Amino acid sequence: MRGRGDRLEGLLGELELDRFLVTDLTNVRYLTGFTGTNGACVCGPGLRLFFTDFRYTERAAAEVEGWEALTIGNDWLKGIAERLDGRVGFEDDQVSVRLLGKLKEKIADGTELVPAGGQVEKLRRVKDDEELAAIAEASKLTDDVWGWALEQGLAGRPEREVARATEARIRELGADPSFPAIVAAGSNGALPHAEPGEREIGRGELVVFDMGAQLDGYCSDGTRTFATGDPGEEGRAVYEVVRRSQQAALEAIRAGVTGEDVDTAARALIDDAGYGERFGHALGHGVGLEVHEGPRLAQRSDDVLAPGEVVTVEPGVYLPGNLGVRIEDLVVVADDGLRNLSSLPKELQLVD
Amino acid sequence: MRGRGDRLEGLLGELELDRFLVTDLTNVRYLTGFTGTNGACVCGPGLRLFFTDFRYTERAAAEVEGWEALTIGNDWLKGIAERLDGRVGFEDDQVSVRLLGKLKEKIADGTELVPAGGQVEKLRRVKDDEELAAIAEASKLTDDVWGWALEQGLAGRPEREVARATEARIRELGADPSFPAIVAAGSNGALPHAEPGEREIGRGELVVFDMGAQLDGYCSDGTRTFATGDPGEEGRAVYEVVRRSQQAALEAIRAGVTGEDVDTAARALIDDAGYGERFGHALGHGVGLEVHEGPRLAQRSDDVLAPGEVVTVEPGVYLPGNLGVRIEDLVVVADDGLRNLSSLPKELQLVD
Repeated sequence: MRGRGDRLEGLLGELELDRFLVTDLTNVRYLTGFTGTNGACVCGPGLRLFFTDFRYTERAAAEVEGWEALTIGNDWLKGIAERLDGRVGFEDDQVSVRLLGKLKEKIADGTELVPAGGQVEKLRRVKDDEELAAIAEASKLTDDVWGWALEQGLAGRPEREVARATEARIRELGADPSFPAIVAAGSNGALPHAEPGEREIGRGELVVFDMGAQLDGYCSDGTRTFATGDPGEEGRAVYEVVRRSQQAALEAIRAGVTGEDVDTAARALIDDAGYGERFGHALGHGVGLEVHEGPRLAQRSDDVLAPGEVVTVEPGVYLPGNLGVRIEDLVVVADDGLRNLSSLPKELQLVD
Repeated sequence: MRGRGDRLEGLLGELELDRFLVTDLTNVRYLTGFTGTNGACVCGPGLRLFFTDFRYTERAAAEVEGWEALTIGNDWLKGIAERLDGRVGFEDDQVSVRLLGKLKEKIADGTELVPAGGQVEKLRRVKDDEELAAIAEASKLTDDVWGWALEQGLAGRPEREVARATEARIRELGADPSFPAIVAAGSNGALPHAEPGEREIGRGELVVFDMGAQLDGYCSDGTRTFATGDPGEEGRAVYEVVRRSQQAALEAIRAGVTGEDVDTAARALIDDAGYGERFGHALGHGVGLEVHEGPRLAQRSDDVLAPGEVVTVEPGVYLPGNLGVRIEDLVVVADDGLRNLSSLPKELQLVD
């Protein structure tokens, strides 16, 4: 954890800041290790202060490393404001208008609060070895749950039942779902954000199955599209287009390319096959403490990929009223390519 | 739902507002019925506009009642800003500093954004019959899960196992936990916000067991303290103090009294017994779409209770390193008293 505070301190100069006030709980966790529901921290040159309330004094002592842990009694904002000095960056994308107003009333004259959101999120993009191990573990757990789910069978069961059973299995294995599982069969598969419903999964249908686990804070995210028997000519053709598009994207990934480059590699194949209008979302996103974080793999994304970033690669084609296909891997960006954390096959699998 | 928008419109005059922009998703759900993850609404004289994006067009058509549902395409904030006019109240306790800045760039000249957070929350305090039925159902489900949990037995099992099994049971019954269940035995019970750990529940221990369910959006919240065999003289004595304190609070509740009045009724008994320093939290809080909402039953709370408000009544005594007791009911405030939604007995129960 100590190195993370140092990286944040390293940003103060170019941002012309004396202090950085971090209030987003995920960012606080990233920097300090604290997992409770009330905490904040202040970073400055040689200064590492972590704040919580009496409920979490013991937890902070156990979890927080490399930051001085302080318990604030009555007046939370005053306790923080007293430690602020000079030009103080705050997370303007997270701090509410009201909170900023109250904080301004409590800071000393001469202290200035400067909008500076998104900085810790930038640091979070590149994962260290410990984080990569945690994400790989969450991804492996998810792959195991897919194996389990296919053993139970898909056809003849309501989508919702399959989704809820999958989430329960993730919890049995000691993790939490990183988002509600999506199980969308047949024409429901054409809705990229379908909610699993009471509709029974039929035979010969394509089933979009999207899930992730959060284990020790770190998330996984993956999708496979299975077929409960032969999905027909169009189904097979669309599947193959998405599979080749996904493969092209994987081959395009390496440190130094932009999110737009990779998105384009995938999109070109789908465009060429005549389904360009049917791939209505971005190719991928970063994954870590949050299931959606930076970088973005999308048109107009100038995020330049760096070694140690973890991203999803998830092209899809959605034919309204008919079917949908999405294939999603979770990969670690490397200097000369990537390491794929997803172990499931990508050829169309016919399942029960 | 329609009546809720009318109640919000009724506040515009005294707040000297022409429009109210609601962006908090729970408030949006309360007003419009929408349950998706991206929505906002604008209320004005005779004006009821609901906004979402393409992912939720169909859901909005199915769920939103009494509001015109609009799908915004590319520019979310611009789509909303175009419908704002005059003095527009916004939820300053929820809107981030950055979002407000962006919104200001998009509104027309002459339109003014006025901090006005917390108004819908005030409306939400008093529940209508449909809401009361939903909360009662969630509370009944929780009571059933307690019965189930006691059948499984407590002693000899790790706290965490009991907590996780309880949450799984809530999900099996079609609800979600409204917060992670607390199971805190022996000295862990002295930590009001203990996280269930690997510690095995022993014999002759007091076990603080706090849980709730969220069903169709509405939450329950309740606590019982069980004894796995005789908890000893001090344990029995503390339990009895808390039980009488809780009873006194229930007897103090009726429309027209303040949150402080009720808190004092409970606290006086604990003070008299010499445990005043060991009741370190407020007596209770409102429950509805959120498990913590208004009104507050606490010292310095001038919230005046009104018929149809739903509150927890949860005094506790915590002896560090030794034991803790908390007893919590969920009740509906009435003109001349209350209706208690909790069905479990309050006498100390010796369990396995």
